[in-house]
Amino acid sequence: MSKTIELAQHLEKLHINNMYKSDFYWTWDKTDEELDAIFTVADALRDLRERNKSTRIFDSGLGISIFRDNSTRTRFSFASACNLLGLTVQDLDEKKSQIAHGETVRETANMVSFMADVIGIRDDMFIGEGHKYQKTFMDAVKEGYRDGILEQQPTLVNLQCDVDHPTQCMADMLHIIHQFGGVENLKGKKIAMTWAYSPSYGKPLSVPQGVIGLMTRFGMDVVLAHPEGYDVMPEVEEIARKNAAATGGSYKKVATMEAAFQDADIVYPKSWAPFAAMEERTRLYQAGDQAGIDALEQKLLAQNAQHKDWTCSEEMMKKTRNGSALYLHCLPADITGLSCPEGEVDNSVFDRYLVPLYKQASFKPYIIAAMIMMSKVKDPVSALMALDAADKRKFF
Amino acid sequence: MSKTIELAQHLEKLHINNMYKSDFYWTWDKTDEELDAIFTVADALRDLRERNKSTRIFDSGLGISIFRDNSTRTRFSFASACNLLGLTVQDLDEKKSQIAHGETVRETANMVSFMADVIGIRDDMFIGEGHKYQKTFMDAVKEGYRDGILEQQPTLVNLQCDVDHPTQCMADMLHIIHQFGGVENLKGKKIAMTWAYSPSYGKPLSVPQGVIGLMTRFGMDVVLAHPEGYDVMPEVEEIARKNAAATGGSYKKVATMEAAFQDADIVYPKSWAPFAAMEERTRLYQAGDQAGIDALEQKLLAQNAQHKDWTCSEEMMKKTRNGSALYLHCLPADITGLSCPEGEVDNSVFDRYLVPLYKQASFKPYIIAAMIMMSKVKDPVSALMALDAADKRKFF
Amino acid sequence: MSKTIELAQHLEKLHINNMYKSDFYWTWDKTDEELDAIFTVADALRDLRERNKSTRIFDSGLGISIFRDNSTRTRFSFASACNLLGLTVQDLDEKKSQIAHGETVRETANMVSFMADVIGIRDDMFIGEGHKYQKTFMDAVKEGYRDGILEQQPTLVNLQCDVDHPTQCMADMLHIIHQFGGVENLKGKKIAMTWAYSPSYGKPLSVPQGVIGLMTRFGMDVVLAHPEGYDVMPEVEEIARKNAAATGGSYKKVATMEAAFQDADIVYPKSWAPFAAMEERTRLYQAGDQAGIDALEQKLLAQNAQHKDWTCSEEMMKKTRNGSALYLHCLPADITGLSCPEGEVDNSVFDRYLVPLYKQASFKPYIIAAMIMMSKVKDPVSALMALDAADKRKFF
Repeated sequence: MSKTIELAQHLEKLHINNMYKSDFYWTWDKTDEELDAIFTVADALRDLRERNKSTRIFDSGLGISIFRDNSTRTRFSFASACNLLGLTVQDLDEKKSQIAHGETVRETANMVSFMADVIGIRDDMFIGEGHKYQKTFMDAVKEGYRDGILEQQPTLVNLQCDVDHPTQCMADMLHIIHQFGGVENLKGKKIAMTWAYSPSYGKPLSVPQGVIGLMTRFGMDVVLAHPEGYDVMPEVEEIARKNAAATGGSYKKVATMEAAFQDADIVYPKSWAPFAAMEERTRLYQAGDQAGIDALEQKLLAQNAQHKDWTCSEEMMKKTRNGSALYLHCLPADITGLSCPEGEVDNSVFDRYLVPLYKQASFKPYIIAAMIMMSKVKDPVSALMALDAADKRKFF
Repeated sequence: MSKTIELAQHLEKLHINNMYKSDFYWTWDKTDEELDAIFTVADALRDLRERNKSTRIFDSGLGISIFRDNSTRTRFSFASACNLLGLTVQDLDEKKSQIAHGETVRETANMVSFMADVIGIRDDMFIGEGHKYQKTFMDAVKEGYRDGILEQQPTLVNLQCDVDHPTQCMADMLHIIHQFGGVENLKGKKIAMTWAYSPSYGKPLSVPQGVIGLMTRFGMDVVLAHPEGYDVMPEVEEIARKNAAATGGSYKKVATMEAAFQDADIVYPKSWAPFAAMEERTRLYQAGDQAGIDALEQKLLAQNAQHKDWTCSEEMMKKTRNGSALYLHCLPADITGLSCPEGEVDNSVFDRYLVPLYKQASFKPYIIAAMIMMSKVKDPVSALMALDAADKRKFF
Repeated sequence: MSKTIELAQHLEKLHINNMYKSDFYWTWDKTDEELDAIFTVADALRDLRERNKSTRIFDSGLGISIFRDNSTRTRFSFASACNLLGLTVQDLDEKKSQIAHGETVRETANMVSFMADVIGIRDDMFIGEGHKYQKTFMDAVKEGYRDGILEQQPTLVNLQCDVDHPTQCMADMLHIIHQFGGVENLKGKKIAMTWAYSPSYGKPLSVPQGVIGLMTRFGMDVVLAHPEGYDVMPEVEEIARKNAAATGGSYKKVATMEAAFQDADIVYPKSWAPFAAMEERTRLYQAGDQAGIDALEQKLLAQNAQHKDWTCSEEMMKKTRNGSALYLHCLPADITGLSCPEGEVDNSVFDRYLVPLYKQASFKPYIIAAMIMMSKVKDPVSALMALDAADKRKFF
């Protein structure tokens, strides 16, 4: 029996009826079994591909991608996922990242969705706006479908918003599951999500928020650490606390990187901007106050520079369990002595983890494909079994 | 019997032998039965898609798109149409819209067409140039095919030129046909194509020209209205007159928006630039006279501003038949109080027609796909029947 | 028996086992039989397409294109080749052509290759860098495959580097073979690869180098001519000399265009930059010395202008065999009196060769497709026979 069949049999036991035609905004919208289904389908698609089996569930169809911020990795992951399933990507290029409003979004959403099966949106620039944009867009296409404008109801894959980065964090998590030999081995493991110094400005909060919002669901001890003033959104922290309580794990905050790294099994040191400053930036952008934006940038760069000791050095890594915690990063990292004089991580640490880091990233196309498949296919168990049984090869 | 089969049976009765391998420049190049065939195939493709039937008639192949002006809607419509039929879009990005000449166009046309099945071109910026560019391009690929350079003869879909905008107007027309329950119900209906004020500059004339050139063919009373100086091309008016005479409808011009809207069943209020001014602009561009171009822009904006009363207000709408004429627009509209202080249409009017407006737009991908299918498939009746009979699903 | 079957039977006799999973950097990395295989498969794919046979060997999959220099022709050729075989192109847009370094390339290579079957790279701007970039990239994905990051090993098609332009020169060569009625008719034919004046600056050396590196393998008398100071890379000249010695042909340099054209059967007059100047430019770019770059450009333009007599005029053409040598160019050419006042070729000469020139270009998509097929398909003989036997049409 192939791995795909085993995975399909596992999928059969899960309660996943609500996933059909559903959007993927945030991991905490989904039940544990629904997340399990995504991981399961991701692994199955990977197994099929390794065996040169066609994974096309679409004969034709479009995946619309909207990147309101630059992207290479996620763009290629989305393109790969669509291709894997038989969809063609059509990119909506909005030129510059502007804060778009209701009616315009509603019109655009319908105009680009006549043949859209899936919509992938990245909009992470403005706190309080990214998720709102995605919601407005998807409400519009839902109405368009209801009103007979669209023949099919497109579904959303959130490719990063101001709140969560579910395709990244789900890929991170699937990597962890594989590295630790199964989700059952994660109970009691300590994972440190920590701020790290970067010479650049305004990195999104969606990764740390996504990590504490997701990884508190597997019985792990999740620790968040950042310098004063670099808080993440309190609503997401609340979710992390509830998750931990429900799974017998824990969520806590510590004041130093050292404390977070102490005996950690997994570390995720990464820069981000302070939530309050990002709120201020959104207001400045909405007011068109360029002088204010520039002043804020200078202030934040200076503030960052006070915390250059928050870096994933060799010394810091030694504090982790056996000095060999699994090092995670969503890439690209600011690497001390390689891409910048002082950054998030020592070159020697980064270099030692190169293969696992690339593997971590390699799960993203499969996670996206699994999200698409679960929302578009009514009976994914049969679909996987059919793909496994067919002798349709991916290539000759 | 499915709707597709019914439509295929209707198609069988039409005289459409000349459509195979033909280009689509202007609606008035085509016979009534040829236009009927496009509408019929568009409806059939939509029916097949609604029933999750594969509509791929291409196993591989390229649709080349050339947008010599910005475009989101038409770009997505072309991409959707190609995808629907199994073609991949490859975009030729000519960076800036320049007036290209003979030899360069001839070379480019061949270089991008080695695998091209279809060419979609938008070139609407310069009066006297857009159509010429398309013609030069298509003559070149025709020669390329004849000379053994190309294995297949690509065919044209005009995605808007300086004269006509056939994919838009055919979509508009199919929308009207559906709204009025069939082409047989259009006799004697009054449609008002009127100029409307917009704060922007230099909008193409291809929509009003396309509308009077097409909609005079269905026995309707077509009325064109615009302020003094906003004439459209006289050649197209001549076509409108001949069409009306042939179908028992009428074509006339009136001097005010009020007169046009009076008892109208359908209204299409939309801004455009004066034909003579656009001719002047073409000359200025050819001479590279930037100061002249800027001066012309200022002059035209001031001229526009004298006609702010040409707007589709609630008062204006009340003059139409039962105060509830079908409101059309090719989108995006300049909406008073929403996208601009004073524009083509009141927000309340626009908002009331949102669903029909989006439906109007939704026909464009199917119209384009039907144009492609009719020019590429020798026996479209059999093709539709085969698509209907096959149990090849669009997705699992 | 179809032409494809004949070609497949020829392919069966060749020693081509090493081509599976191999990269295509330079023609001189490949054996004569391997090049023969590329030509054979290119002809077979063209025959299949002419007969409306599907040539899709991929059910899904990505061809990643990386153009570190502007490109229309090669971009469309790569897109066409991928489409012909069933691959979708995903373009990596690196914005500006910068000299990228080790780690960044390694990371990017893996990040874009999760579903990549083929990588096409053009990087011709910097002498000493283009090939290095391709090598670094491909070594990275090879490691990625070995380390389990990638499910499949992508292979390279060099779409032009600083050393060779194999897809161009192989297309040129296949054109010559067809024009002369077979490779067996080339023995003793004289081909003149000569420099020609152009008013533009810094054209790559990869075409003249590719030509002398490839066309010395068929028993022809290859002559290179250029003004003093316009030398090509000595390593490639060394390869040309060895090739000629091995095939009974010859390779020599002459000092004037006249001498090169004298009794030539084929002429390839084309501008390029001096090798030493391009080395200097690379150093200036690496040092970020914009003033130096500008000064070098002025110096080179002035140097070019001293050699305006190096032009493919009607007089010059008269010196060739019967005054009717086959004229080649990779396009676009600088045409005297058409695209510039004084350029590489007289308008009347160019115009006379328009059809053969376009035919020359038309081989490139097939050459690229053949390179992809030979590196991805383990048993290309069976693959061709299966494509020929199947009744799967390219379109309905």
